Amino acid sequence: MNLSAKDLPELQSELSEQLGQVEELLLESVQGSGDLVDPLTSHLAKAGGKRMRPLLVALCGTLGPNPEPEKLVQAATAVELTHLATLYHDDVMDDAPSRRGVNSAHIEWDNNRAILAGDVLFARASRLVAALGAEAVDFHAKTFERLCLGQLNETFGPQGGEDRVEFYLQVLADKTGSLVAAAASFGALYSGASDEVREAVALYGDRVGVAFQIADDILDLVSSAEVSGKTPGTDLREGVDTLPVLLLRRQAAEGKGDAEVARILDALAGDLSADEDLAQVVSAITNHPVMAQTRQLARDWVDKAIDALAPVPDGEAKDALVLFANSMIDRVA
Amino acid sequence: MNLSAKDLPELQSELSEQLGQVEELLLESVQGSGDLVDPLTSHLAKAGGKRMRPLLVALCGTLGPNPEPEKLVQAATAVELTHLATLYHDDVMDDAPSRRGVNSAHIEWDNNRAILAGDVLFARASRLVAALGAEAVDFHAKTFERLCLGQLNETFGPQGGEDRVEFYLQVLADKTGSLVAAAASFGALYSGASDEVREAVALYGDRVGVAFQIADDILDLVSSAEVSGKTPGTDLREGVDTLPVLLLRRQAAEGKGDAEVARILDALAGDLSADEDLAQVVSAITNHPVMAQTRQLARDWVDKAIDALAPVPDGEAKDALVLFANSMIDRVA
Repeated sequence: MNLSAKDLPELQSELSEQLGQVEELLLESVQGSGDLVDPLTSHLAKAGGKRMRPLLVALCGTLGPNPEPEKLVQAATAVELTHLATLYHDDVMDDAPSRRGVNSAHIEWDNNRAILAGDVLFARASRLVAALGAEAVDFHAKTFERLCLGQLNETFGPQGGEDRVEFYLQVLADKTGSLVAAAASFGALYSGASDEVREAVALYGDRVGVAFQIADDILDLVSSAEVSGKTPGTDLREGVDTLPVLLLRRQAAEGKGDAEVARILDALAGDLSADEDLAQVVSAITNHPVMAQTRQLARDWVDKAIDALAPVPDGEAKDALVLFANSMIDRVA
Repeated sequence: MNLSAKDLPELQSELSEQLGQVEELLLESVQGSGDLVDPLTSHLAKAGGKRMRPLLVALCGTLGPNPEPEKLVQAATAVELTHLATLYHDDVMDDAPSRRGVNSAHIEWDNNRAILAGDVLFARASRLVAALGAEAVDFHAKTFERLCLGQLNETFGPQGGEDRVEFYLQVLADKTGSLVAAAASFGALYSGASDEVREAVALYGDRVGVAFQIADDILDLVSSAEVSGKTPGTDLREGVDTLPVLLLRRQAAEGKGDAEVARILDALAGDLSADEDLAQVVSAITNHPVMAQTRQLARDWVDKAIDALAPVPDGEAKDALVLFANSMIDRVA
């Protein structure tokens, strides 16, 4: 996501053109239903975003011998539209006040309209995928199903003897890795890459998605309010168990936690509405060894993503995929 | 929906077998994700329902010379799954306490899980449709888009000079007629019927859907609590403008309303939480001429639905479609 022109001298102009076309098709796809509905359905697309998934489609779209630019643009737009659809529903579910620097749709409109807007965007993603053929539709629908089931499983939480950390990593793979993997896979498919390469980049995408989410958990603790616009520890305040917290809980459950671990978990269970209390627990966690463990896990998942690329022929595109994976944790290294 | 064996002597066994297969595939499609998720995703399917859309697929599946039973079953299941998906979202949006005699999913679980369950069901509907080919997917996605846009437009309400009643009827066609039309259309398609017949039954479906919803508005006022399980006037109490109310408002807006109209609109704007107050306004509306106008509109839409069948060859299937249309208002005649 921090890929710049100097990193990819030859690919850059090719990718830029394609991503420009994705942007056009995206803006077209979120509109077309009149002056009342369009501002709602185009709200998040117009608010910007990193377009990580379209970039990945474009990058993997250079891996095979026969890129089909039109299909790559359609697939990239459909994947981004699907992502946007889930954001509308996520923000309702999390009651999130803002997204991408603007009010969430459910704040600007209401919950009902935000839910329906998400549904409309998913329908439009399906229409784009339909133009790619029934196989693409099945793959896209399977991906969306996995994504939703990942989120559902997260709400139910780990059962019985399930390890909390393993469960969490599986949820991250399902709810985020799935769509990133689909982006990579579509790219490979519509460049005419071999099945082996397609499977390799899908696995890569799954793992990059997990690394991205772990980095997000770290960012929740270490980002400055100026950079992210969020108070550090927002997830903790909302009772969301991010990875460092799960590692602490696992230590406690295994009887390996010291007094400091007990103190932190106690604070997490208490009232964190005062900024001072929140800042204290954030500081305690960031000074605890679980922070290094979390960073190591993010690094491990990036490495595993890069390992998955073994079957991909060497070249500028593969180099870019390695850079892309590393960029997931550059933010928190 | 009140079609019985004696109405359709020859078709009955054929339809019964197909509808049995739909029921099997439906139950299979709402499960398969483990002991925690399955009860949620299968909740509404298991609660029963009239299966109006699958019946229509099956009926129209006898219109052409080459019925493809497997495709008809897949299409009917996909349409019903789509309908179920929208019910999960509808019940969250309306905060409806119950559905089909059981607690709504969002009551039994919570809003977030109900939203995600709806999304999962839509993904599974898409997968079934994917197996039918890209054209079916595009048609299905377009239908879902129209359905959601109908609901969205409803939330925004009529604008500027738009006639409230016309606007409402268009919303009914979009949010309900669309999927009923898709059911009829899929049936005709997978029986090898001509494009002319397919278009005819789609138009029929659109109109039958509108008639069904108008009948629902009438039922809200006239159904006994024993039959529907709902207090008459529930929609009025919740501030939902059903068709008789819209007709009253139009009279008032056009300066054609008498003192009684003003009195009713006044009561509707007030507090209807007491059963006695609600019963009074229900009685006032049911005794007002708008009630006969509403019944006439339902009858008109049934007649328009039947008119749409002109290109369909005479025979038992067409007779059944006429019966089916009439059954929409038999409940409220």
